[in-house]
Order: sequence, then structure tokens, then C-alpha cells
Amino acid sequence: MTARSCLSIILAAGEGTRMKSALPKVLHKIAGLPMVAHVVRAAQSAGSGDLAMVIGYGAEQMREAVPAFVPEAEIFVQEERLGTAHAVLSARSAIARGYDDVLVMFGDTPLIDPAALADARARLAAGADVVVLGFRTENPAGYGRLVEKDGALVAIREDKDCTEEERRITFCNSGLMAIAGARALSLLDAVGNDNAKGEYYLTDIVEIGGARGLKIVAAEASFENALGINNRAELAGAEAIWQKRKRQEIMLSGVTMIAPETVFFSYDTEVDPDVFIEPNVYFGPGVSVEGGATIRAFSHIEGATIGPRAEVGPFARLRPGADLGEKAKVGNFCEVKKATVEAGAKINHLTYIGDARVGAGANIGAGTITCNYDGYSKFFTDIGAGAFIGSNSALVAPLTIGERAYVASGSIITENVPDDSLAFGRARQKTLPERAKLLRQRRADAAKK
Amino acid sequence: MTARSCLSIILAAGEGTRMKSALPKVLHKIAGLPMVAHVVRAAQSAGSGDLAMVIGYGAEQMREAVPAFVPEAEIFVQEERLGTAHAVLSARSAIARGYDDVLVMFGDTPLIDPAALADARARLAAGADVVVLGFRTENPAGYGRLVEKDGALVAIREDKDCTEEERRITFCNSGLMAIAGARALSLLDAVGNDNAKGEYYLTDIVEIGGARGLKIVAAEASFENALGINNRAELAGAEAIWQKRKRQEIMLSGVTMIAPETVFFSYDTEVDPDVFIEPNVYFGPGVSVEGGATIRAFSHIEGATIGPRAEVGPFARLRPGADLGEKAKVGNFCEVKKATVEAGAKINHLTYIGDARVGAGANIGAGTITCNYDGYSKFFTDIGAGAFIGSNSALVAPLTIGERAYVASGSIITENVPDDSLAFGRARQKTLPERAKLLRQRRADAAKK
Amino acid sequence: MTARSCLSIILAAGEGTRMKSALPKVLHKIAGLPMVAHVVRAAQSAGSGDLAMVIGYGAEQMREAVPAFVPEAEIFVQEERLGTAHAVLSARSAIARGYDDVLVMFGDTPLIDPAALADARARLAAGADVVVLGFRTENPAGYGRLVEKDGALVAIREDKDCTEEERRITFCNSGLMAIAGARALSLLDAVGNDNAKGEYYLTDIVEIGGARGLKIVAAEASFENALGINNRAELAGAEAIWQKRKRQEIMLSGVTMIAPETVFFSYDTEVDPDVFIEPNVYFGPGVSVEGGATIRAFSHIEGATIGPRAEVGPFARLRPGADLGEKAKVGNFCEVKKATVEAGAKINHLTYIGDARVGAGANIGAGTITCNYDGYSKFFTDIGAGAFIGSNSALVAPLTIGERAYVASGSIITENVPDDSLAFGRARQKTLPERAKLLRQRRADAAKK
Repeated sequence: MTARSCLSIILAAGEGTRMKSALPKVLHKIAGLPMVAHVVRAAQSAGSGDLAMVIGYGAEQMREAVPAFVPEAEIFVQEERLGTAHAVLSARSAIARGYDDVLVMFGDTPLIDPAALADARARLAAGADVVVLGFRTENPAGYGRLVEKDGALVAIREDKDCTEEERRITFCNSGLMAIAGARALSLLDAVGNDNAKGEYYLTDIVEIGGARGLKIVAAEASFENALGINNRAELAGAEAIWQKRKRQEIMLSGVTMIAPETVFFSYDTEVDPDVFIEPNVYFGPGVSVEGGATIRAFSHIEGATIGPRAEVGPFARLRPGADLGEKAKVGNFCEVKKATVEAGAKINHLTYIGDARVGAGANIGAGTITCNYDGYSKFFTDIGAGAFIGSNSALVAPLTIGERAYVASGSIITENVPDDSLAFGRARQKTLPERAKLLRQRRADAAKK
Repeated sequence: MTARSCLSIILAAGEGTRMKSALPKVLHKIAGLPMVAHVVRAAQSAGSGDLAMVIGYGAEQMREAVPAFVPEAEIFVQEERLGTAHAVLSARSAIARGYDDVLVMFGDTPLIDPAALADARARLAAGADVVVLGFRTENPAGYGRLVEKDGALVAIREDKDCTEEERRITFCNSGLMAIAGARALSLLDAVGNDNAKGEYYLTDIVEIGGARGLKIVAAEASFENALGINNRAELAGAEAIWQKRKRQEIMLSGVTMIAPETVFFSYDTEVDPDVFIEPNVYFGPGVSVEGGATIRAFSHIEGATIGPRAEVGPFARLRPGADLGEKAKVGNFCEVKKATVEAGAKINHLTYIGDARVGAGANIGAGTITCNYDGYSKFFTDIGAGAFIGSNSALVAPLTIGERAYVASGSIITENVPDDSLAFGRARQKTLPERAKLLRQRRADAAKK
Repeated sequence: MTARSCLSIILAAGEGTRMKSALPKVLHKIAGLPMVAHVVRAAQSAGSGDLAMVIGYGAEQMREAVPAFVPEAEIFVQEERLGTAHAVLSARSAIARGYDDVLVMFGDTPLIDPAALADARARLAAGADVVVLGFRTENPAGYGRLVEKDGALVAIREDKDCTEEERRITFCNSGLMAIAGARALSLLDAVGNDNAKGEYYLTDIVEIGGARGLKIVAAEASFENALGINNRAELAGAEAIWQKRKRQEIMLSGVTMIAPETVFFSYDTEVDPDVFIEPNVYFGPGVSVEGGATIRAFSHIEGATIGPRAEVGPFARLRPGADLGEKAKVGNFCEVKKATVEAGAKINHLTYIGDARVGAGANIGAGTITCNYDGYSKFFTDIGAGAFIGSNSALVAPLTIGERAYVASGSIITENVPDDSLAFGRARQKTLPERAKLLRQRRADAAKK
């Protein structure tokens, strides 16, 4: 970080027609977060300063979505799409306020590296007027080449405009740029549109600045800084890179995964060391898992807190508001939603617990359902510590089951059960000898007719 | 396509001992379809004309299976396995009918490319007598080499028979061949069996034709045209290639998949643009998904229709005959079979709906079971629009629940419920104070003894 | 195998700090088995003879864990960690008993190859005094180089101590060593600690032996012999290699997997030929599957026996003690634990069967629960052959359902049901016309207030 003031401009005006989507491209998600929000987070990690978001296509959707992940961003609308320099100038009023550094990023490059941004700013601090981030590749075809001379960047040459010699350059333009704030407007205003498409290209400021004797340099960063998303296959590709990084980071911190390639995390998943994760687990946003917990295969977890040494799955679904205490257990074919499952409580099979508290050490039998919805409203079920709910019971909320209370298997419970009480609500069994045989014979007779 | 007449001969007589299977090799499936059916579909895409299927091993199973995917095919049995030319001649009577083009394909190369077949036919139309499809590879060891001279194909040389120079040839025989119909029988009849194995090799017609001054050419196609399946690892390899192609095609059409490598399609899966698919979804045959639908993780879907903006999963199983309307929802641990779930109806948790209609906007509580089978026959359950089925209910079919009817939680419903009626069928709850404590004490006392 | 006597010393004293775990490194599992147990099994396959396990860090946990997979091992504690030669000498009393061969292995290299060990022993038998197993790699940086001269191994040089010429050597030390028993103690005792770390290095015996005119040789083995696990990412990497091998072996034996990369086996999983496995199946320890069985997607199976032509899943969980007979079926959202499911019995949906027998041909309806636990003890449910259990029933154990007995849907069964009898235990339905409409109106009125 530096004490220099900074304006981060994120260009997010494009339509992204190849996404074939009603949603603006930059709102498509990576790891549960819109790709443009990944760019914002990277900028913030590099000390973004003020944020300017340039929008255009799908402006209404963007205006609604952006504040959710960056409420403080100033939004500028690029009314016509006339090129990248024109897009940056949509934020003219912000640039004109005067900043030491101006960073320009693209909203569709979700894997940009905060360290690369910080490095670019450091070069401004050291005297550069414009810093272009580039990457090296063995297959530069299609990318703009960074043409350097004596340590200075003299031009960014489009692939199609390259000379034979330039075509062999393997140092390419990532699109990311840092500009000395004092020079920014003057450089941008000098960009013309005398080219085939009639657009204003940001990359032109390199040659303009060079002609003015400014210090224009290229800085090397990794390829991923330039990884723009243009269709859903590329979106999946970026997701895969993100997941791979996250898995590696999590394993090195002391988490065991039998098959990391089958475990999917969200941008904000927190997993403590010595957690054990079986194959095929999906973590949606808002999950934290404490040390010693086990997440078994085929679990789907969103918005949930999993306490130390708790055990989840296989085949468990934890929905938002599921809060599992120490050594709590949620097993196969169980769904828990907006419910606290206190320490040592067990919900082992085929159960739905919604809008409830399950007290410490309570045991919920197989097939138990909290009937929390009556078609109009949701109601709460409170199950006391040490209670035992027999299998296949229906608990009709609102309902309080006392501590150490006992509900017999197969009961429909509609009234509160006091502490230490036994409740049952089931019909008496009748058994008719030989009747099954008779039924079978009737069926056989009927089939003959 | 061309107006020329065509006979497509598919060789499918081999046993495939390395498959270690009671099923003939070519009936093993890729993407839910027997591999030989993939060959048929490729041929048909290239304008196959008449189809001749040469069978041998497992003839009975083949005779039964083939009509399911190509009822119009003429079946020929190769009684003895005496080589590829001999196999082709099993269809002598078909060839003798006279066709402009004769295509020869192998039933165990499921990834052949219709474009390559069409290209071969185009070369026949342009005057070639025999066209052999070849592929380039950097590792040609083990493949037959295509020996060319002055633009003509002069021989197909087995790896073991190659000279040092020929061994360096990287253009290899895929096995696919197109023969001018007027030449076919004469060439095939000229093939001898004077070789180590005493077999009649189709590849010999290259040199025979050359000696006769015919125009024999090689055409380059992709490696996958030659990808023959000989064991189950290769079967899985071909499946992986097929799935990768399908995923790419689907993503580029506008479908989002977080982890495409974990989503499995069948040969006939149809997914509209702007569908969102979470990781770990399996599509069996016969599924179509309309725009805006969401398929969440861990869903298993076969023979089902999913309407626009419907939501399926996580952990949902849709079986054949499941037909979901617009915005219908089938959630976790739910199974739907032979049932129409009308617009906006919700089946959210732990439910089995079989042989049923769920009316528009109906809400099916957690743990609901349609009891559609009495041990002898299956019966229908009809649930009216706007009905509310309380959790943990059993609906004993045949049964009609009226529109806007209300079934109380935990009910066993055996009689029809009229529109707007309330039904319940459950025992009254009894609560015995202090009884749970007593039970616990007795247990503790018993344990002491 | 050879008639020569052998002592296999497994070094398992390290802490493995980069694992960030309370568990000693070598107890972390690959395919359900501690990695050191994989080393033991490899040694045993090569005719390990007596086994000496050198432990140190986490000695208490090791003493408890080791006998579970190798009860006959003699355990030695290395009190201080003073280098590999010092570790080997912790087993001095065993070496001193006199063996023809002494093998030295590391407990954190779970993929070592029995054939490589056998090859090393064969070289001892042929006259070598010390055999060092090496591997070839194009990227030797970081590994100790095997410096050979005239067919003899003259030194193992650490990367940092290499000359320029030595640095180009691509033959590296795997760590595995075989020593003629008669030479072992004398060589080990000659190792000094005059080096930067003040440790006693086993690799020093190469030069010591050379100076004594002994025959010291290197033998080439695969890289995987040297694959040591130091963190959880490497643990996952080794698991991936193990799984890939196992899948390939299983497919070549005649098992079909649509997506082998999504199927996970344990060290002892047995799958017969002509089994069909859909994607996403997890086999924990103790599973065998007989021929013709089908395991559908999303199944989680541990400690279970699956009979011929049985069908499991999708979404099935078989827990230890599940024993499925011929053509038995366990379907979606079903859990079976400690239960025999006899030939042809069907458990199709949303069911929990625990501590039970399901007789041949019995049909268990959707949503059936065996209530096997009363909060204190587990009880047994015995369901007779040909019985029919209606959907959504609760079977309260201990309980015997007779042969061909019939339980009506939605019943709570608490008393035994004789053969051929019909049992029901459910309340009578009541239907209140227009009451649902009334409820709705009241709600609407209440909402207005």
C-alpha cells in the first residue's frame, strides 16, 4: 500500500453477446460472486482508493447489482460504445478531481492479481507516467504485442498490424493500465478515432505519451491477469482456475480432501485446519467450517456454520441459517434450514428441520419432519436439550418439546410437550389374520376374469 | 448431401473379448446409446442411403438390439470371422444391387465424423474409385501407414511390414473407406488370404485397385475417426471425448455450468440457452430443459421434461414421465415419476410423487408419499390446483384431491377430498407428564441389574 | 520371492509439520488406508520377512494404530530425530539378529512398487552389498543424484553439493535401500554426523561401502517409488494416482464406468466383471460387488456386500453390514445398515432399514422407517419373505412381520404381524367440506387487520 491517492476505473459496459444471456456479462458469477466483483476485490486488495464503475449494456441490471458488492462505487454510464478510451472518459468527472494514480481494469477479467496492480502503482510512484501490464506467452497470436525499446514501451501493436519482427514478440498486452493522475485527462483527450472502426482506443496513449517524452513502461504479470471471459466455456474455464487455487490453498492450510477436484468452494468459504472433506461436496456462499469437522460425500451446503468436530453428510443439505454446534451431526437425506442444532445433537436420517432449535444432545429419529409451514406462514419448533423424537414423527409448529421429553415413533405432535413428558399421537394397530392371503386370492381371481 | 445413391456397410461382427462382457462389444453404450448406433447416426448425417449391418458374434442379441436404433437396416450375418473383406462381402447381395457409393465403417468407432464421410463421398463423386480416410499422428507406431505416391494412395502397410522409411510415415489408416459402387464387388472378390492369419483384408483393395489403374486416394480426417474401442478403459475414454464435446457445444449455446466436467449428458439431451446447471448432474436419455431453468447439484434426471424457469434439485431425481411446468419446483430428496407437475407447483423435500398430477400452484409438504402401488397394481393420484398437502402425509391412490383442498400434516388420506375441503386422518396426541423421566429411570435400573 | 531371510525396516518417525495435523503424517490415509500401511503391504508383497517399524513423533497414536494393519510388526522408538541412519539404528536389536537382506523404506511413500523392492532383493542375492533404488526424471533439481562409475554407485550427492557435471545427472535417489544383512550394522555404525545439520545420513553408507570395496549399485525404478507426502496437496496427489491405477485395473477386468474419474475406491474394494457403475460413486472400505450388479449415480457404499445383478442407487447409502442378495434393489434416498436384503427384495425410495432382515421378494414401500432405536438400545426388525410394507409405515422394533404379510400404507406397527396377515395402524380420515376455503378467508381477514 502507498499513501498516494488512487482512482480505480472498472470498465463494465460491454454486452458480451457471445454469453447469449439476458444478464450483462460481468454479472455472471465465478465462485458465487459476479466476475466484476472479483475485479473490485482485487482492486481493493491493491488499495483501490475510489472506485468508478463504467456501465453501459444492461445499465438497469448493473445499477441494481453493483451496490450489493461495492456500495461505495461511483457509477458512470457510457451511453455509446465508442472504444476503451471513450469508456474511461465516461468517468471524466472523477478523473478530474485529481488523483495520484488512475488504475484501469476490465470487469470481465476476474482473475486479476492484486500484486500486479500494486506493482503497477509502485512504478507510478517511482516516476512512470503510464504502466501497461503485460504477460508472456508462447502463443501470442491474436494478442496485442508490447513493443519495447531501451526499456521503454513504445507501442501496443494489434496482431493484425504487426510487422514480421513484431509478430515474434511474446510479451502481450493484458489490458490493465496504471496512469499518473496528473497526465490522465490530457492523454485520454488526445486519443483520436481515425481507424477502421472509428473507435477511441486506450492503447493509443502509449504512443501519444511517448511522443510527449513521458515515461511509459511495461510490467510483466501472469497470464491470468489478461484472461477475459467472452462465453460460457471461458466462464467455466476461469471458474476451474479459481477453484484449483482455492483447493490448493485450503489443502496447504491443513484440510484433507480425498478428491479436491470434486469439491467446490465459494468466494467466501472458510474452512479451518484438520477438517476432512470426502469427494463431491458443494459449498455455496456463506459457509464456515470449524476444526475437526467432517464433511462427507454428496453434501450441499449454503449459508451454514459448522462447529468443531461436527459431522455432516453423506447426502446432507444445509441451507442458509443452519448453525451446527460442536459434535452435532446431520446425516443422510437430511435438510436443515434456519435452525440451530446444538452441541452433540443428532439428526441422522431422512429428516427435515426448518425454523427450529434442536437442543444439545437431542436425538431426532429417521423420517422426522418439522411441519413449519401451514400454507400461509412459517412457525418455529423448539426442541429441548436431551429430547428424543421417535422416527417418522411430524412436529406441527408452532411447538415446544421440553427438555428430555420423549416423542413416540410415528407420532403427529400438535401440542407442546413439557419437560420429561412422553407424548404419542398415533393410531392403535389392528391385525387381521389371514386377510393378506384373502386379498391376494381376490386379486388373482380378479385377474382371471 | 448428394443425389448419388449410397450403401453404408457397418461391420459389427466382432466379439471384443477384451471387453470381458456377455454383451457384444458394439452394444456397449456411449452417452446412453450403443456405440454402433453412434456410427449409424454419423452415417445418416452424411446421407448414408441404405444401411447394411454385418453381425456375427452375439447375433441373437444384435438382431434384437439393432432395430431399436435403426429399424430400416438390413442385417447380414458373417458366419465365420475371416477378415474385413470377408465381412464386407457378407453384404454381397446388397452391394450387388448397385449403388454409386459404398461406405464401409466399423461399429466400434463411435466418434466418426459425418463430415469426413461426406468428404469421402464427395471424392468418389469427383472421380475417385476408392477413398481411404487417414489421420495424422506423431506416434504412428502400431497403425497401418498410408503410403502415397504422386497424390495416389499406393498401399496401406501394416506397422510390422513397414520399411524403415515407411515407418516414419505419420499418416495412418482410420479403417473407414468409400468405394465406387461399380468397382466394389470386383475389388473385394480379388482379395486373397495368402497371409499369416489366412484372412481376407479389406485394405488389400488399395494395391489391387492400383494395379488395375484405378484412382485410389487418401483423405485426411481427425484421429477420432479411427478411435476403436477394445476394452472398457477405451470405452470410458471415448465417453469422455463425447461428453467434452457436448459440454462445449452446450456452453457456447448459452448454458452456464460451474463445473462442466461433472455434468453428464446423453446422446439426446436438449438444454435451452440461459439454463444454469450446478456441479454433479446426470442426464439420462430423453431429457429436455427449457430456458431459464436451474438444475442444482446432485440431480439425476431421465426421460423428463423441465419447463421454463423450473427449479430442480439439489438431490432431485426425475424419472421417465416427469413433466415439470413453468416455474415448477422439485427439491431435495424428491423423486418424481410419471407425473405432471404443473406451473408453479412446489415439491420441496423428501417426497415421492409417482403416477400423479400435481395441479398448478399446489404445495406438497415435506415427507409426502403418493402410495401408488398396492403390491399388485399402480394407481393414479390427482392433486388439484392450489391444493396444500401437509407434511408427512400419505396419499393412498387411487385418489383425487380437489382444487384448493387442504390436507392436514401427518394425514393418511384414503378417500377423495373435494375442492376447498379440509381433510385429516391422524390420531389425537396424548401426553403423559413425567413419563419420559420414569422410562429413563427404569432403563437405568435395568442396566444396573 | 526368495528363500533368503529379510528384515523390512519402515521409517515412520517424522512429524510432518507441513501436514498441519494432530495426526502423525504416516497415518493420513490413501484409499481408506494409512499411507504407512500401503508401504507395509508393498513390502509384504515383495516378501518383507520380519517388519520393524521405527516410530517417533506421535508415538502413542502410532502404537495404537499400527497393530490394526500390521499386528506382527516390531515397534522401535527413535527418541531423538538425528537423521535417517540413526533412525534405522533404532532397530539395531532386530538387525543384530542377522538377516540375509535388510530393506529400508519410508512410511510416507505410499506408492512404492513391490516389484522394485523384489528387484533390489534379487540384486543382493546376486552379490550386491547395497542396492539403492533410483528414478529418472527430466527435472532432477532438488533430488539427490546417483553418481555412478563403471556400473558402481559411488555416491549419493545432495543437490546443493553437486558439481556442475553432477547437477546434469537425471538419475535420482528414491530413498529406498536394500542392504546385505551381514554388512548392515558395520556400515551404519560407520556413519558420522560431521555435517551442517549434525545428522547421521543413511546415504553416507554408499561412500563408506565403496571405500571398503563393497559392491554398491543403483537400480532403476519408477518415480512413484520416491513420491513422498509432505502436505495435504501431495496427499491428494498420491490418492489421485492410486485411484487412477485402480480404475484402470477395474475397467480392464470388465467393469463399465461411464466416468471413471468420478468413482472412488478403497484399498480393498472388490468389483466383479460386468458390473456397471454410473458416475459419482464412493466406495468406502469393505465393499464387494458381484457380477451383473448395477451401481447407479450418487451412491455411497461402505462395508457392504452387493449380490449378483443387484441394483443400487441412485442416491443410495449402504452402511456397514448391508448385505444385498441376488437381484435385490435399494433405490433413491434409501439407507441400509446392518441388514440383510434377501434375493429380489425391493427397497425403492426414501427408506431407512437398520438392524433388520428383509425377506426374499419383500417389497418395502416409499418412506418406510425401521424404528430400531428407542433412545437406549437398538432392536431388530424381521420382515418375512414376500411381505408387503405399505408406504410411509413405521416399523417399531423389536418386531417380526410374517411371510406374505401385508402392512397398510401409513401404519405404525408395534406388534408382530403373523404370516399372511393384514395389519394397519392409522387413524380414520375425516373430511370437512368448505373448511379449507374458510381457513383461507380467516387468514386473509387476519392479514388485513
